[in-house]
Amino acid sequence: MSLKIAIQGIRGSNHHQVAKDYFGEDIALVECLSFDSLVDHVLNRRADKGVMAIENSIAGSIIPNYALVYQNNLHIIGEHYLNIHHNLMVYKGQTMEDIEEVHSHPMALLQCKEFLKAHSHIKLVEAVDTAETAQRIQREKLHKIAAIAPKAAAQLYDLDIIASEIQTITNNSTRFIVVKTQNKELPKTEINKASLRFVTDHKRGSLATVLNVMSDCNLNLTKIQSLPIIETPWKYAFFVDITFDAYDSFEKAKSLLHIMTEDFRVLGEYKNARI
Amino acid sequence: MSLKIAIQGIRGSNHHQVAKDYFGEDIALVECLSFDSLVDHVLNRRADKGVMAIENSIAGSIIPNYALVYQNNLHIIGEHYLNIHHNLMVYKGQTMEDIEEVHSHPMALLQCKEFLKAHSHIKLVEAVDTAETAQRIQREKLHKIAAIAPKAAAQLYDLDIIASEIQTITNNSTRFIVVKTQNKELPKTEINKASLRFVTDHKRGSLATVLNVMSDCNLNLTKIQSLPIIETPWKYAFFVDITFDAYDSFEKAKSLLHIMTEDFRVLGEYKNARI
Repeated sequence: MSLKIAIQGIRGSNHHQVAKDYFGEDIALVECLSFDSLVDHVLNRRADKGVMAIENSIAGSIIPNYALVYQNNLHIIGEHYLNIHHNLMVYKGQTMEDIEEVHSHPMALLQCKEFLKAHSHIKLVEAVDTAETAQRIQREKLHKIAAIAPKAAAQLYDLDIIASEIQTITNNSTRFIVVKTQNKELPKTEINKASLRFVTDHKRGSLATVLNVMSDCNLNLTKIQSLPIIETPWKYAFFVDITFDAYDSFEKAKSLLHIMTEDFRVLGEYKNARI
Repeated sequence: MSLKIAIQGIRGSNHHQVAKDYFGEDIALVECLSFDSLVDHVLNRRADKGVMAIENSIAGSIIPNYALVYQNNLHIIGEHYLNIHHNLMVYKGQTMEDIEEVHSHPMALLQCKEFLKAHSHIKLVEAVDTAETAQRIQREKLHKIAAIAPKAAAQLYDLDIIASEIQTITNNSTRFIVVKTQNKELPKTEINKASLRFVTDHKRGSLATVLNVMSDCNLNLTKIQSLPIIETPWKYAFFVDITFDAYDSFEKAKSLLHIMTEDFRVLGEYKNARI
């Protein structure tokens, strides 16, 4: 039986691409129209694993997704980076002059800002998913409306690409994580990256002390993000990603951070996808 | 002549509320339908100052707005916190049962997630601004469509509130910044907060070293956010907010950070709005 992989979005979306890159072609895709629904599917075992975007080189972290992982006790068992390519696609035969509206995910609209500025007669409409509009254009034979979506969506839904690679920054990389209800039993020798969450108080230098310990244990910080804890003023939660060469170093740091911080949790231990 | 204040959104929006709280009632409001347009207005002096949301206790930082401030050399001259109250509003006489769609800003939809889940027959549609849908419901006498917007929008556009305070987390605070093309000449004794941006390389412990210096200079970290620099792998930009008691301590830290980090820039020096 194929592995059931939940993605945000539908066939032809960037999440679909990541699922194929990571798991291969032999998967049963579970299309979810929100990240909440994706998490529900994983928790209720209607999917074996889930793929979700977690940060983007232009827009930064998708904090609500960090919160979903944390609050639902999901484990990050892997990561994948995808270079995002945005393409403007339309119903067969339509041209740039015909287009009155472009529909796409807010993140995609943001990432094509400069291109869209240069075609200011086109109205921007936010949509739930990049590929979903492509599908709808074909199904409802929509004229005057363009989608911004990956090339795969144009092939899948038989649309014409009238402008390709329209993203503002060409090196537009998005990081995705693979989540599961239980931690995957990866051999310790293969683990060289981890995602952590911990809380420190507002005392001067408390974060510096934590980072010193990490540095002493030979951990490299690849990401840090503070988030005030809403219910508790003056406390901060930190989401931190680290890479390391030896699992032993990480284990030592873990036992120290358990003592030094509050609510210390390892959100996942996995293999670094970026060498 | 009244001060011309650019906001994202229209009259009745949360940005409008912040502009009134911060500058008083005697302002000329410049309504902008995107943050880009807001920045354009400030740069071209069609507005004296701009008010923009910069982070939220649920969704985290609005990274693209940090990028707008940085890339356009704007100065942060003040900040303001607003507790966000979301209300479901409709054309006079419509009831909950009549509603088929709810339109609002993606951030507002996210913040009312639990309420909307409980009314799953209602389709969610993302809109550019919270108040804009309220205005449109009145102007076009829209039935079957509800807006999520502040109470002020219901009064302004004569709508019925059919559910109030529908945000998931009741303590939902959003931080706004006030931006200007030049730095405001605030007396040094009144300055006790600053926003910084700097770059460090991937060398182990480089951030820890910077935070140690900040801590030694008696600066308190209230926010930290790393962002990979797209064009330069292994380099990270950090957006950091700090508070301090004495401007002298900050001045000392500034001269050290200038030497220790790359591209060090003070995005703004201002008065801490949260005591």
